[in-house]
This record gives sequence, C-alpha cells and structure tokens, in this order.
Amino acid sequence: MIDVSADGRAPVVGVLGGGQLGRMLALAGFRLGLRFRAVDPAADSPFADVGPLIVGAWDDPRTLDEFARGVDVVTWETENVPVAAVEFLGARLPVRPGAASLLNAQDRAAEKRFLAGLGIRTARWSTVEETRDLALAGGEIGFPAILKTRRLGYDGRGQARVEDAQALDRAWATMDRVPCVLEEFVRFRRELSIVAVRGLDGECRFYPVVENDHIGGILHRTRAPAPDLAPALAGRAIEMAASVLAAVDHVGTLAIELFESDGDLLANEIAPRVHNSGHWTIDGAVTSQFENHLRAILGWPLGETAARGHSVMINILGAPPSDLRPLARTSTAIHLYGKRPRERRKVGHVTIVDPHPTRAADRADDVERLLGG
Amino acid sequence: MIDVSADGRAPVVGVLGGGQLGRMLALAGFRLGLRFRAVDPAADSPFADVGPLIVGAWDDPRTLDEFARGVDVVTWETENVPVAAVEFLGARLPVRPGAASLLNAQDRAAEKRFLAGLGIRTARWSTVEETRDLALAGGEIGFPAILKTRRLGYDGRGQARVEDAQALDRAWATMDRVPCVLEEFVRFRRELSIVAVRGLDGECRFYPVVENDHIGGILHRTRAPAPDLAPALAGRAIEMAASVLAAVDHVGTLAIELFESDGDLLANEIAPRVHNSGHWTIDGAVTSQFENHLRAILGWPLGETAARGHSVMINILGAPPSDLRPLARTSTAIHLYGKRPRERRKVGHVTIVDPHPTRAADRADDVERLLGG
Repeated sequence: MIDVSADGRAPVVGVLGGGQLGRMLALAGFRLGLRFRAVDPAADSPFADVGPLIVGAWDDPRTLDEFARGVDVVTWETENVPVAAVEFLGARLPVRPGAASLLNAQDRAAEKRFLAGLGIRTARWSTVEETRDLALAGGEIGFPAILKTRRLGYDGRGQARVEDAQALDRAWATMDRVPCVLEEFVRFRRELSIVAVRGLDGECRFYPVVENDHIGGILHRTRAPAPDLAPALAGRAIEMAASVLAAVDHVGTLAIELFESDGDLLANEIAPRVHNSGHWTIDGAVTSQFENHLRAILGWPLGETAARGHSVMINILGAPPSDLRPLARTSTAIHLYGKRPRERRKVGHVTIVDPHPTRAADRADDVERLLGG
Repeated sequence: MIDVSADGRAPVVGVLGGGQLGRMLALAGFRLGLRFRAVDPAADSPFADVGPLIVGAWDDPRTLDEFARGVDVVTWETENVPVAAVEFLGARLPVRPGAASLLNAQDRAAEKRFLAGLGIRTARWSTVEETRDLALAGGEIGFPAILKTRRLGYDGRGQARVEDAQALDRAWATMDRVPCVLEEFVRFRRELSIVAVRGLDGECRFYPVVENDHIGGILHRTRAPAPDLAPALAGRAIEMAASVLAAVDHVGTLAIELFESDGDLLANEIAPRVHNSGHWTIDGAVTSQFENHLRAILGWPLGETAARGHSVMINILGAPPSDLRPLARTSTAIHLYGKRPRERRKVGHVTIVDPHPTRAADRADDVERLLGG
C-alpha cells in the first residue's frame, strides 16, 4: 500500500497524459489528499489548470526523468502512450496498470486475438496490410463493413464504414494504407459498456452495465444502469470483464465496449483505463471510476461501485453553451474541462441523477435541448 | 455574469486564503472548468497542492498586485483577511462578498450589535476593554460565562469558560488583556447552524438546518438535516439568515451558528463564508456550498440546496489514521486536505450519506471508532 511519500506527506501520482481523464483523476485524488503531476506533449492540456504539467514527448528520456522525480506511482490516461515509456518508468517506479494492459489495447488485431483467446466473441474481422488483402478481406467479411486502423484510433477517427469493394479501396487509400482491420458491420440492438476495476490484490469490482449512444463515432449519451438489460447479459458482461482484468493482471479501471446483438454480447473494444462511459460514476455511483482507479494503483481497498439512482451522462462537444445560465438552472452536475472549443471535441459533460429512470430520461431530454442538440 | 476571462478561457477566481476552505472552493470550481489562484502567508497552505499560491502577507500591496494579475473575481475563505486588502483589491476588481460582510464578522461586539439591530437574539453580553470592565461585566452577565477575544478567534481559540470573578481576571490576563466580550453561558439544548447563499441578483437559498457537536470548541460532527427540528425553528433560522444576507448585501455562502434553547434560537456567530458545518453538502446535497459560493460570486444562477438523504460529517483532527484501509472499506466519502499533522488541527473529514437517518447515525458511530474517537 502506497500511503506516504518520501517527504512524509501524501503520495504523488504521476499521470502519463494530461487530457480530461488525467484531469478528472487528479480532481478525484485531490479530495483524498493526493498530489499529482502529469506529462503531455501539449502545453494547453486540461491538466495544466489543476496541477504541474511537464510538457514534452512521452518517448523523451529527459522528459520522463523530470516527470518521474518525486513521483510515487505512475499511471496513464490513454492507451496511446508508448510501451517503451511505461517500461522505462517501470524500471524504477511502480507503473500501474502495466505494459501488458497497454499492449492488447494498442493494436486492434492483437486485441481481437486476445479476446478470442479468452472465449469472448467479437465481430468477424480480417487484417488489411497489403493491397491484395483488400479483396481477401472484403470477400471474407462481406459488406457493409468497417475499416479501422490497427493503431491510434479514437472517437471515430481512423475508421470508415464501407459499402462495397471500391469504397474499401478508397477508404484504405484515405488512411494512407496503414495496417488496418476490416470488421463485419454488426447490426446491433444497442451499444453497452462495462466499467470494472481490479485492485492490487486482485479484487475485482464492477459498475452496472450502461447503455451508450454514439453520434458520428463519438459517445453522446450514457444511461446508467442500462435500461431493461437481461440479467444473463449483465452477468456475461461481468464475466468478460473479470477474465480480461485477470488475463493482463490489470491494476486499475478498465472498460469494455459491447454490442448487444441477437440476445448475446460481442466485445467491440477494450479501453484499459478510465472511460467516458464511466463519467456518470462521479455523481451517480458511491465511488467514482476515478477514485477507484487511484485506490487500485495505490493498493488501497476498492470502493463500492453501486449506482445511486438512475443517471444520464451527456457529453458536451465542440464548445460549452455561450450562456451557461439555462444549464446552471437545471439540477445537473456540470463538468467542464477547460479546453478551447473545437468541432466535435469533448469539452465537458453533464450528469443527471434521479431516483426514477423515466424522469431521469425526461430531464436528460430537456438538458439536451439546452445544449443545442 | 462573469463567464469568460481576458484570454478567452474560463474565469480565474482569486482566493484570499489558502486553507482547506480555499482548497475545497478550487476543487468545486475545477469541475466547472474555472481556474484558481490563492494568496496566503503560509507556503505550506493546503491550496498549494492544487493551484498556484502566491506566498505573502495579505496587507502587502506588492503581494496583492501579483495576486490580482489575471484574476477576474476575488473572494476570501476566512473573515480574518484585512478589510484594507479587500478595499485595495476592490478598487480594481469585483471582490465578493464585499467589505460589509467582513466588518461585522471580525469583531464580536460589532457582530452582536448588528444581530440585535436585525432583531436576532444572542446570548447576553458585555464588553471588556479595561480592568474596571471586568467587575461590571461579571456583575451584569453572571457566572459561568464565556470570555472571548473580540477579534481573530476560531475553533475555540481566544475563548475561555470562567466560573467566577477571579477566573475572569486570570482568563483576561491570559488573553493579554486584548478587547474582549463576556458572554452569558447559554444552557442550550443543542447547537445548530444554517448555511445559506445569496446570488449576485439577491436570490437566496438555504441548506437544511444542521445539528453540530463540538468537542473542545472544535466542530466534531454535523448531522444534516438536524434530527427532529421543529418546523417553526427551521423557519426562524431561514428568516435570520435571509435578514443577515440582505443587510450586508452579501454575495456568496454564509453560515450562522445557532443555539437551540428553551424552544427558541439564539445566534452565536456569523461566518460570512463557506463553513465547516456545510462540508456535508459536497456529498449530501444537490449542489455543494462551495459550488454555490462560486456560482454566486460569478453571477451565475444558484444551484439546488436540497439534501440527498441523511448525512453525517465527522471532522478528522490531528492526523488521518496511519492506516487508511479500514476507513477506505467503509462507504464514506473521505476528504483529506494534505495538511501536516498537528494536535487538534482539522486535516480532513468524512461524510456518510444514507437514505435512513438511524442507519446514517449507526454508520457514523462505526466510522468514529475507526478514527480512534
């Protein structure tokens, strides 16, 4: 258990990445008396307003040296940090989660093989690495299909829906012919996710399965718990998360995006970190995903993951409303990340918590109108 | 409404005082995307771990100049900041609340006269400024009584219970014969308080009246809402708060400490700021006292003050438990301020929120045993 730093004060947590996830980790940890620092290539990272940010590349040893000084435990807020950085830091400090959690999440092909090895279903898929793979993959998977870059995709970037072989050729050219996977287009009933956390001692806890709506590949809304979910499917989601957590000896929070299709669940993607579909837990669960991540990496006991009432989380994209007053008049928890406006950028979110699921949904509709949806 | 800073980003709030109240203001404001800086004479102020702290005296113009640069609105977290500092800053920036809120709270005699002017009862009292006042005051108020310094008292410091005239003489000598008030010792049934907030437009909101237990003059426990409070008394507390808020044109959060005695309420003290007996609102109310203070000083609409369930807040004094694990296993919200341990020092608090008042109380007893109470 990490409970004291070299200076006799509370531990210092170092975060690889200074985005809103790192910022919200710090906000959860400040409440517990923890101290934070982050490292990010971007000087205007959201973390910069709440703590000391080292600006530099994640693969620069001098930057990492400076970052590591005085830090007691390292974590990361994006799976796009280089494995080499995690290993470099891991040679002198605990880095949690470890490189194993990162490896499976950085490459969609590795991830799908990993899931298959655990007996977890995914959409059918095939790799595209050379021009001749296009016809093979198209023939095997059929159309429509989704072409996705193997690496560095997020929020719908690095993917395209393709309707036929010609569109597949064009899409791959648009992606500069980097290694890709072609995935079956799943006609899902809805998108779900499960956020789970595993402690240093291996204890696992699971938040209720939630329902997610995406618009243009970006999470728009999360309903927690997912309405009318068959108990068998909730149990299956927990099994999946438990086996993924254990297989990589994960320490911290992790999310699995799921499709509900034909009465079964398919895994879409693993996010081995705190996740946008878990933001509702700040206001709507006994312990937030951020606090539980910190508890895990510090070796503390995990906190309760039960929901308090019914929550709806709505992302604020692009820019917050120019007049915040109407939103401030609703009984919602407003979260803004201090980011400069940019189209489709996640700049904040709001959470509605209500004892009644239908009232929560109605209130969410009202809030969405205010957000100009 | 202050919604944007000169750099086009979210407003910067400047806080006079870097104690835990300033820190918790910042934590509430970070969630809203706000930026913070604070000024405090102590370099190891709790604020220092969460934001830029200017270290210097509140009455030093150069310190205040540095502090004011880039700040959009100034507030204070302690009534012990000099009125001159508030006026100095107020000449160029909005300072909220203003000097009027400060004046009445810095001097116990002025405070009691102010309350009397609003028709609000207090314990009987008399001033002690010269040696001959001792006999006069002792004769008028009787014994036991409480001798309190007129200025700079907090957490039971600067006050003493005196049983007779000799003890009064000795107590005043111990207080270096500074100006004091001698107060009637009120045989109260219990201590209560009301936390209220007033917006820039004059709108007032009131949190439920709470019950407070003090040990050695320091707040130990708050129960929210106060159990079994007569509705007429709750109404009277709201009236008192409303008249105090309006009389000084207060903008922000304010607390009044009360005695319940003989079926009536007496005002004990005004704290024209966020208050320890309102810490439960972070976890147990729809909008916390900290967020509402920020909403008020920024000119935003106020948030809902309703309680969610029944809360018990317990202060952690001296030092956090050396092993946090047992506490972390309870379903409580743990708040630590990052302060170095010192006897009787407020270093953190925990809040239990439960739908059932008796279960909340039972759980609080369990937590208190873990805190070594």
